[in-house]
Amino acid sequence: MESGRKGLTVKDDSPHDFVKAYANHLKRSGKDKDGLEVNQDVEDGKALLIDSTKEGIIPLAGSTPVRSSWKLKSFVTVALTILTSSQSILIVWSKRAGKYEYSVTTANFMVEFLKCGLSLAALTRIWGNEGVTEDNRLSTTWDEVNVFPIPAALYLIKNLLQYYIFAYVDAPGYQILKNLNIISTGVLYRIILKKKLSNIQWAAFILLTAGCTTAQLNPSSDDRVLQTPLQGWLMAIIMALLSGFAGVYTEAIIKKRPSRNINVQNFWLYVFGMIFNAIAILFQDFDAVTNKGFFHGYSMITVLMILNHALSGIAVSMVMKYADNIVKVYSTSVAMLLTAIVSVILFRFHLSLAFFLGSTVVSVSIYLHSIGKLQRQQ
Amino acid sequence: MESGRKGLTVKDDSPHDFVKAYANHLKRSGKDKDGLEVNQDVEDGKALLIDSTKEGIIPLAGSTPVRSSWKLKSFVTVALTILTSSQSILIVWSKRAGKYEYSVTTANFMVEFLKCGLSLAALTRIWGNEGVTEDNRLSTTWDEVNVFPIPAALYLIKNLLQYYIFAYVDAPGYQILKNLNIISTGVLYRIILKKKLSNIQWAAFILLTAGCTTAQLNPSSDDRVLQTPLQGWLMAIIMALLSGFAGVYTEAIIKKRPSRNINVQNFWLYVFGMIFNAIAILFQDFDAVTNKGFFHGYSMITVLMILNHALSGIAVSMVMKYADNIVKVYSTSVAMLLTAIVSVILFRFHLSLAFFLGSTVVSVSIYLHSIGKLQRQQ
Repeated sequence: MESGRKGLTVKDDSPHDFVKAYANHLKRSGKDKDGLEVNQDVEDGKALLIDSTKEGIIPLAGSTPVRSSWKLKSFVTVALTILTSSQSILIVWSKRAGKYEYSVTTANFMVEFLKCGLSLAALTRIWGNEGVTEDNRLSTTWDEVNVFPIPAALYLIKNLLQYYIFAYVDAPGYQILKNLNIISTGVLYRIILKKKLSNIQWAAFILLTAGCTTAQLNPSSDDRVLQTPLQGWLMAIIMALLSGFAGVYTEAIIKKRPSRNINVQNFWLYVFGMIFNAIAILFQDFDAVTNKGFFHGYSMITVLMILNHALSGIAVSMVMKYADNIVKVYSTSVAMLLTAIVSVILFRFHLSLAFFLGSTVVSVSIYLHSIGKLQRQQ
Repeated sequence: MESGRKGLTVKDDSPHDFVKAYANHLKRSGKDKDGLEVNQDVEDGKALLIDSTKEGIIPLAGSTPVRSSWKLKSFVTVALTILTSSQSILIVWSKRAGKYEYSVTTANFMVEFLKCGLSLAALTRIWGNEGVTEDNRLSTTWDEVNVFPIPAALYLIKNLLQYYIFAYVDAPGYQILKNLNIISTGVLYRIILKKKLSNIQWAAFILLTAGCTTAQLNPSSDDRVLQTPLQGWLMAIIMALLSGFAGVYTEAIIKKRPSRNINVQNFWLYVFGMIFNAIAILFQDFDAVTNKGFFHGYSMITVLMILNHALSGIAVSMVMKYADNIVKVYSTSVAMLLTAIVSVILFRFHLSLAFFLGSTVVSVSIYLHSIGKLQRQQ
């Protein structure tokens, strides 16, 4: 079992035990991860709080900590933000060109396939430069991959629920309810990974939810959301929990072996993604694929969308590895705002006062999150 | 000149010099007013910041500081909040009964008259209990009252501008633009009184503005506000500055002589209020008053409104004396939210999702403001 090498001493047999072990591992290394150094500036009589985790110290095999640099973290975060915003714009674009002509399941399969290919290509380069090591070899053990299907399964259940929720909520209403993801991610991040958020960071998280929702308000969605029946609310909450759980679980999986090359981890995650999407093709689009072919209805925009989804999927993994789900949530929220601004230019969309106010609240939330990091409490 | 007694050594001849002197006074006593004590909890390795001004130490004549108790501060704040909310409800009520039948200027005069009377009544009781002292005697000097007409004059100009702004903005739009008052009060409070707000408190203030505006959003005001012409924006900004300036100025006037009885200060403030409102009657409603009488069109609701305005005016003075303009702004913002909630019950108003989101942001803002107080920075 590889876990001993990472300082995890609890036997990680079941998926649940594995998360518990990871949480304990974080807890044990809490002095470095969450501890605050107090630097007292005697001249001014003020206290300056410095977060020793600002650089994101990641414990390596052995005991030397490796600093995942601030630059790498910023790069993957910015990449995720840009890719996510262009993603929504491509979707609007493809919708403008009419209805989807292709099978969505085959496109999803192609995304997983492409991500697998890109991970392999990256690995080939790494093998050429560094040679095959224990950390970057492709071969794996059942111990390492037995939890990998779980996020894929959670997303599958969530996507199935999506068909039913539209019986109770319309599309603009669902856009608003989707913001429950933000809160569920924060809560599950806290509960499952046992990572602490300071009071200010919690306040920032509530503001992020309120700000994103405000920015998406429009006269057609506003009051209908409050009139959502109880079943709609329950399903929206369950879906938010499922997607929050999948996100936090993926972070736990990827971070469990910090020294393991991210491309190997991605490769196996995406293999399971391909398997789950192949099952989805069989159930949903088997007839269309056998009659009209796998690639029926593909256009240039479809190809661009697949490429974009693949790249942003990889960016999400990178953010999970080098940052965390909280950074991911902020990144996708900013992407939502950027999308709206770009849409104004591309599609002559209309920016409302609500959008302006929501963006202000989101900006303050980001600022507070960064302050909160410096003043993290117990 | 009385100012020496309060530790103000700068001669306060002109109104501007007076504010400067008060600001300097606050600055000199900054160690007590804004200084932070750092209490280091060695066991946990965390720093606990304690604001020594939490109890609102007010320097007395001589040098013994008097603590305006936390209870008194809370009481006047809660009183102001409740009075302000019922104020708006009374206005809605009187409008429901039809148009105003009475002259608004005479009602305003009656409010100032009533406040004068209530201040005198309070003074009579105090004189009975404590006897006439230098702090509670009614007689005054030109030095003490020469700045008192300034807030009254500022409000008069602001009220005159109000007639012109409606050429560019409609009533619901003006309700939204009025939230600029919040920002202008914060900025002027910082500039004129030289009191520091921490970064978190500034963030909280921006959130308060955004939250109040969001709560007031409705389909009829939303987009029209963004289409306000430049003149409308300029006038709204000037009006916000005037009312912010008047508020901060009043605080400076009242706090300049901390030991002076608030009822005496109020009495003289209201005397000038009566004079300015008498001038307004002459200009605006002279004909109506001479033809139909001073109290024409007064109803039970008019009397209730006058009573309410008088009491909330006194509450504002109390908040200025024992707390500050920032507390006043929070108090009136909460009153706005309370009004909406009570209106749902009384007038079957409709609470929108925007109101819910705005209230959330305002609540977080209040929480952050209180945290920010504990962590005030240079």
